[in-house]
Amino acid sequence: MNPILVIFSGGQDSTICLMKAIAERGADKVHAVTFDYGQRHALEVQLAQEIAREQHIASHKVIAVDWYRDITHNSLLDKSMAISREPGAPFPNTFVEGRNALFLLTAAIYAKSRGITELMIGVSDADYSGYPDCREPFIRSMNATLNLAMDCTFTLYAPLQHLTKAQEWALADRLGCLDYIRTRTLTCYEGIPGDGCGQCPACKLRAAGLAEYLRTKDQRR
Amino acid sequence: MNPILVIFSGGQDSTICLMKAIAERGADKVHAVTFDYGQRHALEVQLAQEIAREQHIASHKVIAVDWYRDITHNSLLDKSMAISREPGAPFPNTFVEGRNALFLLTAAIYAKSRGITELMIGVSDADYSGYPDCREPFIRSMNATLNLAMDCTFTLYAPLQHLTKAQEWALADRLGCLDYIRTRTLTCYEGIPGDGCGQCPACKLRAAGLAEYLRTKDQRR
Repeated sequence: MNPILVIFSGGQDSTICLMKAIAERGADKVHAVTFDYGQRHALEVQLAQEIAREQHIASHKVIAVDWYRDITHNSLLDKSMAISREPGAPFPNTFVEGRNALFLLTAAIYAKSRGITELMIGVSDADYSGYPDCREPFIRSMNATLNLAMDCTFTLYAPLQHLTKAQEWALADRLGCLDYIRTRTLTCYEGIPGDGCGQCPACKLRAAGLAEYLRTKDQRR
Repeated sequence: MNPILVIFSGGQDSTICLMKAIAERGADKVHAVTFDYGQRHALEVQLAQEIAREQHIASHKVIAVDWYRDITHNSLLDKSMAISREPGAPFPNTFVEGRNALFLLTAAIYAKSRGITELMIGVSDADYSGYPDCREPFIRSMNATLNLAMDCTFTLYAPLQHLTKAQEWALADRLGCLDYIRTRTLTCYEGIPGDGCGQCPACKLRAAGLAEYLRTKDQRR
């Protein structure tokens, strides 16, 4: 198996990606990169480091991006701004312009320097907030652009691309890590790990998906 | 005229771009962004600041990218490494992986936050070192990726794309800034402004282009 670099935030989605990569390739082939970019919940980075240690992956790199807050404005990077969605706006004000492009580009530069050309990211277009950089056309275009930029054949994997949140929990369950994902990861916009604050859009999405999965699982019994 | 953001290093190419944008739109419509990414010649950033001031452009932003040297290795970021080109290598070891993609992405994030959707970059595929991120297919792909990433219609201009170095000097002459470009900009890998060290690949390319332009100009008289 080839080595793979997982873009790993310590949240639910990217931790499921990490566990999937480990299940498929073995922990010694799995590398991870986490971005410290001034996100609301700095605890995210710490949880990512703990999970990476516990899972004995081959390497874990934290890259600090200092300038994000200086060049764009949104409620994920500015704690004094309330999280909201304007009527008619295509997505909530938590959207960080260009974030997934920056993560993928930086990860690809780092990966190439280590001889790795496969990357994984936990984006999904099915069940989300409508962020444009979570959609499949963006991921495909980004893959082509990275190849042209660095004269290299990268392969970007987005295994959650077409999964609902309920299907994601089903995947976690198949991978044997449902409880681990539920208790150890951070998705909440308020920075509360596990089941979170229960009130923010990320918590509601996560809880609704879990409830839906557990309901269908019960019905199948 | 719409405002435009020029990716501006203080080198010959991007300064010609800046002067072209000023000639076409007026200095009050021209914004510039310079990246301080650990390049060999930190003086470049200082020269860029001086030129921006002298030309009275609308704004000039310097963005520090601290992590570049930490995730990839090349002779432009590592002064202890000799500049060379391995036999058979597609480009010299001065190539900074992903650099133009990073500049364009970061500039686009910054531009969008200021309501600017037109960007200019001084890449050229005609006369260069063979860097993949200077070629037109990369620029077009990057434009499409930026639009998808941020749900926005950016326009990337690369006015030097198909010019030889001699044609670039001709453009500078038409813009009335040949001497300014010749004396005030820094292209030399050794960090010497103006005519530079005369020995590195960048100086040789620059000098050969200027000599060719001046020869054809003389012949036309």
